[in-house]
Amino acid sequence: MEKTMEKIVALAKARGFVYPGSEIYGGLANTWDYGNLGVELKNNVKKAWWLKFIQQNPYNVGVDCAILMNPQTWVASGHLGSFSDPLMDCKECHERFRADKLIEDYAQEHNITFEGSVDAWSHEEMARYIDEHTIDCPTCGKHNFTDIRQFNLMFKTFQGVTEDAKNVVYLRPETAQGIFVNFKNVQRTSRKKIPFGIGQVGKSFRNEITPGNFTFRTREFEQMELEFFCEPDTDLEWFAYWKQFCIDWLQNLGINEDEMRVRDHDAAELSFYSKATTDIEFLFPFGWGELWGIADRTDYDLTQHQNVSKEDLGYFDDEKKIKYIPYVIEPSLGADRVTLAFLCSAYDEEDLGEGDVRTVLHFHPALAPVKIGVLPLSKKLSEGAEKIFMDLSKTYNCEFDDRGNIGKRYRRQDEIGTPFCITYDFESETDESVTVRDRDTMQQERIKIADLKNYFEKKFDF
Amino acid sequence: MEKTMEKIVALAKARGFVYPGSEIYGGLANTWDYGNLGVELKNNVKKAWWLKFIQQNPYNVGVDCAILMNPQTWVASGHLGSFSDPLMDCKECHERFRADKLIEDYAQEHNITFEGSVDAWSHEEMARYIDEHTIDCPTCGKHNFTDIRQFNLMFKTFQGVTEDAKNVVYLRPETAQGIFVNFKNVQRTSRKKIPFGIGQVGKSFRNEITPGNFTFRTREFEQMELEFFCEPDTDLEWFAYWKQFCIDWLQNLGINEDEMRVRDHDAAELSFYSKATTDIEFLFPFGWGELWGIADRTDYDLTQHQNVSKEDLGYFDDEKKIKYIPYVIEPSLGADRVTLAFLCSAYDEEDLGEGDVRTVLHFHPALAPVKIGVLPLSKKLSEGAEKIFMDLSKTYNCEFDDRGNIGKRYRRQDEIGTPFCITYDFESETDESVTVRDRDTMQQERIKIADLKNYFEKKFDF
Repeated sequence: MEKTMEKIVALAKARGFVYPGSEIYGGLANTWDYGNLGVELKNNVKKAWWLKFIQQNPYNVGVDCAILMNPQTWVASGHLGSFSDPLMDCKECHERFRADKLIEDYAQEHNITFEGSVDAWSHEEMARYIDEHTIDCPTCGKHNFTDIRQFNLMFKTFQGVTEDAKNVVYLRPETAQGIFVNFKNVQRTSRKKIPFGIGQVGKSFRNEITPGNFTFRTREFEQMELEFFCEPDTDLEWFAYWKQFCIDWLQNLGINEDEMRVRDHDAAELSFYSKATTDIEFLFPFGWGELWGIADRTDYDLTQHQNVSKEDLGYFDDEKKIKYIPYVIEPSLGADRVTLAFLCSAYDEEDLGEGDVRTVLHFHPALAPVKIGVLPLSKKLSEGAEKIFMDLSKTYNCEFDDRGNIGKRYRRQDEIGTPFCITYDFESETDESVTVRDRDTMQQERIKIADLKNYFEKKFDF
Repeated sequence: MEKTMEKIVALAKARGFVYPGSEIYGGLANTWDYGNLGVELKNNVKKAWWLKFIQQNPYNVGVDCAILMNPQTWVASGHLGSFSDPLMDCKECHERFRADKLIEDYAQEHNITFEGSVDAWSHEEMARYIDEHTIDCPTCGKHNFTDIRQFNLMFKTFQGVTEDAKNVVYLRPETAQGIFVNFKNVQRTSRKKIPFGIGQVGKSFRNEITPGNFTFRTREFEQMELEFFCEPDTDLEWFAYWKQFCIDWLQNLGINEDEMRVRDHDAAELSFYSKATTDIEFLFPFGWGELWGIADRTDYDLTQHQNVSKEDLGYFDDEKKIKYIPYVIEPSLGADRVTLAFLCSAYDEEDLGEGDVRTVLHFHPALAPVKIGVLPLSKKLSEGAEKIFMDLSKTYNCEFDDRGNIGKRYRRQDEIGTPFCITYDFESETDESVTVRDRDTMQQERIKIADLKNYFEKKFDF
């Protein structure tokens, strides 16, 4: 079977994972709304991150910072100065393009490869390349462009009553900076000693020129970022630690080795402040896409904030009696992207023979939006089944379904990735037992109702 | 003891509940960041809402919609037309004021009461009142104002590369509209029949002129909203059901009757489309403040969206063979506000005699940011204590603390509201037991390490 985005988007919409945003008004660019199952799936992904990166990890604590920050933050982080795309307009048809994209598309078409990334070129280099190769406007086919100029990717708004420069604020383009500006606060209140990390889950916004590929690249998106602070010269060890930690997290939640690759940046690709960067990529139906960027950012961020804020962001090591600006390892993951990766990875169409194809989402039980389907064999048996449903709902997100024949109901649960179905049948009242069906093996076993809690207890761990 | 905002804000900052936003840059208006404990507290509040309103409730499902929506949404909802404050400037000192606030403050000072709310008056009525009573500028004392004009409270930004009218989008001022525009989608994919509800937790933004009272009123805030769809004429029953459901939720989580009041809107205060509205208010140290608005919004919202979108938003009842636009009951709760209410409610200073005052947060265990403190009596006992910490961390957010004398460590845990402390002492290795101390009673009991899991199992339910 071929796993295509078309099939996955269709299932997502049909089953309540993801709908187009503002759909009754014809949508809004590339915005998406998570439906009744999607919200559970994405929440489970965020919970799984928090569990392993914050709650269970003895080094780390969390924060939740405001999306609107003092604009000096973006001066220090460099986002105001250089978080921008090189744009130019076609003078003939007035369409607008990213110059670097235009060059990359041209190069790909003509099998030309470059060392490093085109977006590191100067405007002059880009303009010269476009002229020398007479690259045409993809819309109208003419070759008549304006000069290239930088377009900042931060969403801008005004706080307060007047729309003047002093009231400009930006929607954060990343959650990381909320952590850096609170480094001292968190260190003080958590009484953590280096090494320790601060994690955050939250929305960020980037005014991308070309969002796309479903929920892979959207202007509004959610991040799960960890900033791990360590002593200089221990950074490469911790970089290796977190890189492996991230790989393990993905694999423990069901991502296979053959749909994942780990790509270390070479010297030409590294940011000037970074000692090491690795991308963990996932093989989406549309190709390899970045999931997780893990970067050794050295002391760049805290030093920048110290310079701009004039606050002392150094750390004093009580035992060694030395003071330093901590180095930072940043594993940065997109919640929407990794949710999409889990959805793509889980998708399967199984040929059961005789023309019978079963669509099934093989989610890890920890991620499955519905943990247990409770299915009375007949509507007459609703009362006993409802009791089980109410009881299990205290712990698990369950679904009660008494509509249609039992085979169809199993298939419906398979299609939304429910790992276990409980069938309450006519014997259940006498033998006080139910049938539990496993999504993946389709095997059934008879379990005492009183034992269900124990039966499920370890099933959702990872 | 006097419970003041000053004390609560100071504890919040000192212990990592809430810091001023962008603090190293001098802050940003009334923005706040949740610290290492605050993020856990607020997440627990959101989880407790989701558990009772979505997971355990057989009627309801959740969604998670984009903050950026098609602007037609705000045409239909009325936010573009009328979600605004009446503002005027003092011509002498150029300060800006809300005209309705100016009148209300004047009336309060002079013991004048009005029927209904001043913000329902026309501009002419407000201007006339201000002139007739020669209300002066609160800043410079002169009486020389500009005309009153409406200022829309939605944050505006531009999506895409040009800042022109066709690219204007707004940050949603409430999560509710994401639910209304998806009513059909969710009904279809969840296969729910009326009555059913759709809940959502997420950020909203309002460009308030006068934010304040710590995290009570902020421009960026998080909501927990349920839209419950029911058949016309059953609405007042469901209104009563959800009103009681909300009261129970608060009380089950520890809000006392004497710090809560339920205020039904009278006819003059009701919105024109609402059949009934109730505010649940909490007694903050700064006075009564609204926590929860529960409104019978009739079929107003879906009708508005049907009119503007031209999509059929009617519901067909299979059994009764009738079609109608569902009525909506909306319990709308501010996550930051209710988190602040729980913090204020929990705060206590206990006089233990002989000048010993214990600061303690009596959080319901379900809400406590740290569930269990694990305290080895001596650093020599760290290994055994760490094993317990790692084991319990799989299920609960725990804190490990081996610094300072045990009495001080108990007090530190009391001050952050940790309901249970485990002390691992020199006998623990031989009797395989630990001491568990209760935050509220300060009683201790000896528990087998192997029994800890069972001991804690029901402690965090509500």
